[in-house]
Amino acid sequence: MEFSDVVRRRRMVRRYLPEGVPDHVLRRVVEAGRRGPSAGFSQGQSFVVVTDPGVRREIAALAGEDAYVAKGFQPWVSEAPAHVVVCTSEQDYRDRYRAPDKLGPRTELDWPVPFWYVDAGCSLMLLLLAAVDEGLAAGFLALKSYEGLRELLGIPAHVQPIGIVTIGRPAPDRRSGSLDRGRRPAAEVVHHDHWGA
Amino acid sequence: MEFSDVVRRRRMVRRYLPEGVPDHVLRRVVEAGRRGPSAGFSQGQSFVVVTDPGVRREIAALAGEDAYVAKGFQPWVSEAPAHVVVCTSEQDYRDRYRAPDKLGPRTELDWPVPFWYVDAGCSLMLLLLAAVDEGLAAGFLALKSYEGLRELLGIPAHVQPIGIVTIGRPAPDRRSGSLDRGRRPAAEVVHHDHWGA
Repeated sequence: MEFSDVVRRRRMVRRYLPEGVPDHVLRRVVEAGRRGPSAGFSQGQSFVVVTDPGVRREIAALAGEDAYVAKGFQPWVSEAPAHVVVCTSEQDYRDRYRAPDKLGPRTELDWPVPFWYVDAGCSLMLLLLAAVDEGLAAGFLALKSYEGLRELLGIPAHVQPIGIVTIGRPAPDRRSGSLDRGRRPAAEVVHHDHWGA
Repeated sequence: MEFSDVVRRRRMVRRYLPEGVPDHVLRRVVEAGRRGPSAGFSQGQSFVVVTDPGVRREIAALAGEDAYVAKGFQPWVSEAPAHVVVCTSEQDYRDRYRAPDKLGPRTELDWPVPFWYVDAGCSLMLLLLAAVDEGLAAGFLALKSYEGLRELLGIPAHVQPIGIVTIGRPAPDRRSGSLDRGRRPAAEVVHHDHWGA
């Protein structure tokens, strides 16, 4: 699909048809996620792909799907045929910048921005777009705490899950109420040569 | 351009031809950046587009371009015809989640992940890809401190610059030494249904 169409069509989808995502398609989506850049090529991003229905149901439980359904929504997480848990590792960045071609082993960088989260966002964006490019749809959800997910999936202590990308063939879903806020006007968020200009 | 070609062709470029980026092209690239998702549609992302040569030279000075050139590289930042400073605002997220349709004014969310950085990464990724889609190239640089940039561009205290996307027509450049590390194998970073599987 044309890049501009992918960007234009992408939206967060929270309801999917039950049919599974073929393995080779899911692999291509995850491969796109792996092409996210990273500071110093630290490559701190990692992914847990979940298709097992039992594990998906457990993730849905951790996400509080029952409460979500009680509010009148359709089940979202348990019914999404594929989940990709996006993770990052601050440790990988700190190790990378202590390498001899960076600052060396005795210097700790005072990071002005936690780039492990920024780079995780890059990979997240690629996953969301790549799903659309495959004729699928994707959503993203965060949990209030990642301890349960960490335990369920065996995610090591130095790896931080960011959230879960749900992927599948889209079914009609209820529009998110957040969209009623409207998009901020360009003049508020795009400035030229100086803030406010 | 096909989405998969855009993703495949994208790499960080650190040297550009002097020709400027036409306004309408630069506007399309920034519009793509604005289409990044945000938690609760908080829309904390903002952008300062810099094309003024004097301001670009000042940004290059803040980035330590002289030291970079002294190491044998070509000037990168001052010669890139367009810069897009990507910013985020934690405050916008905190305000959003105190809205009546979220947690209400008396509850402060204990954010497990600073999503303002993740979402900035989403917008960053869109900018990098959109530049390639326009037949251009992009690079990204972070500064060690953002105080100077904040002052130069008049960026308010509640807005955090993440870094600078340089955009232009690519010139042959020196390959980043970081790439010699090689890409981590898929088996190390992609897991199935459980970490390590």
